[in-house]
Amino acid sequence: MGEVLTYHTTVRDEWIDYNGHLSEAFYVLVFGFATDHLMEKVGMDERYRADTGCSLYTVEAHVRYLREVAPRSELTVTTQVISVVDKKLRFCHEMTVGDTLVATEELLALHVANARAAPFPDDVAARLRRYQRPVPDYAGRGIG
Amino acid sequence: MGEVLTYHTTVRDEWIDYNGHLSEAFYVLVFGFATDHLMEKVGMDERYRADTGCSLYTVEAHVRYLREVAPRSELTVTTQVISVVDKKLRFCHEMTVGDTLVATEELLALHVANARAAPFPDDVAARLRRYQRPVPDYAGRGIG
Repeated sequence: MGEVLTYHTTVRDEWIDYNGHLSEAFYVLVFGFATDHLMEKVGMDERYRADTGCSLYTVEAHVRYLREVAPRSELTVTTQVISVVDKKLRFCHEMTVGDTLVATEELLALHVANARAAPFPDDVAARLRRYQRPVPDYAGRGIG
Repeated sequence: MGEVLTYHTTVRDEWIDYNGHLSEAFYVLVFGFATDHLMEKVGMDERYRADTGCSLYTVEAHVRYLREVAPRSELTVTTQVISVVDKKLRFCHEMTVGDTLVATEELLALHVANARAAPFPDDVAARLRRYQRPVPDYAGRGIG
């Protein structure tokens, strides 16, 4: 069983919509911060991107909005890798407030070198696989 | 064949990420503006929400990021309804820059009355169905 990666942040006032709760785009923004955190953990940080011309591009995202999130909430995002195959990375984020799961995001991303898809370097792939865990039951499904 | 609903906006500088392109969360923000535009068109505007205590909550979203989008790009979002059944609305947004499709979003939303799911009023459902069009081939699929 792989390691669990966690990222923490606090809901900012400018992320709140007219219903008084976290707006849908800002769940995705926070999930993006958690993706940046994963990239740093596996060596795909700002320096790697500058030195190699490589980066990670999100191709598809499936978000499930499960609960409303109040202003100033403390968010925890746990990240797990589903698979790393060649140039493709599949992974999931789960967002919680306290013990309550409030949203999930399943992602497909591509490793790119100078804007063209390219296999992950072996060392980066190996570090990504440290966070590989069993596939959640919501992954791979269409909107239902 | 239903009507096509379009929404226009321009990419703002604060939506650009470290790669110099529209950041993933801000595609979702723009799609959210297009959802607000749909709500206004079918009578679910701010006054409706205040008068009735009803609103529309996004439950799931599947985003496909197809092309990078440059700063200051002129965006067009076309919106089409897939189905309106009881309290559930399925719909899609497609984002273009000029003639190029840059992203799609498939959504499942619930009509809620005072935070509990409730069927759409008949007149709102009828207006939503004006925008009903054939189901796009990417709808209903898992991440692939």
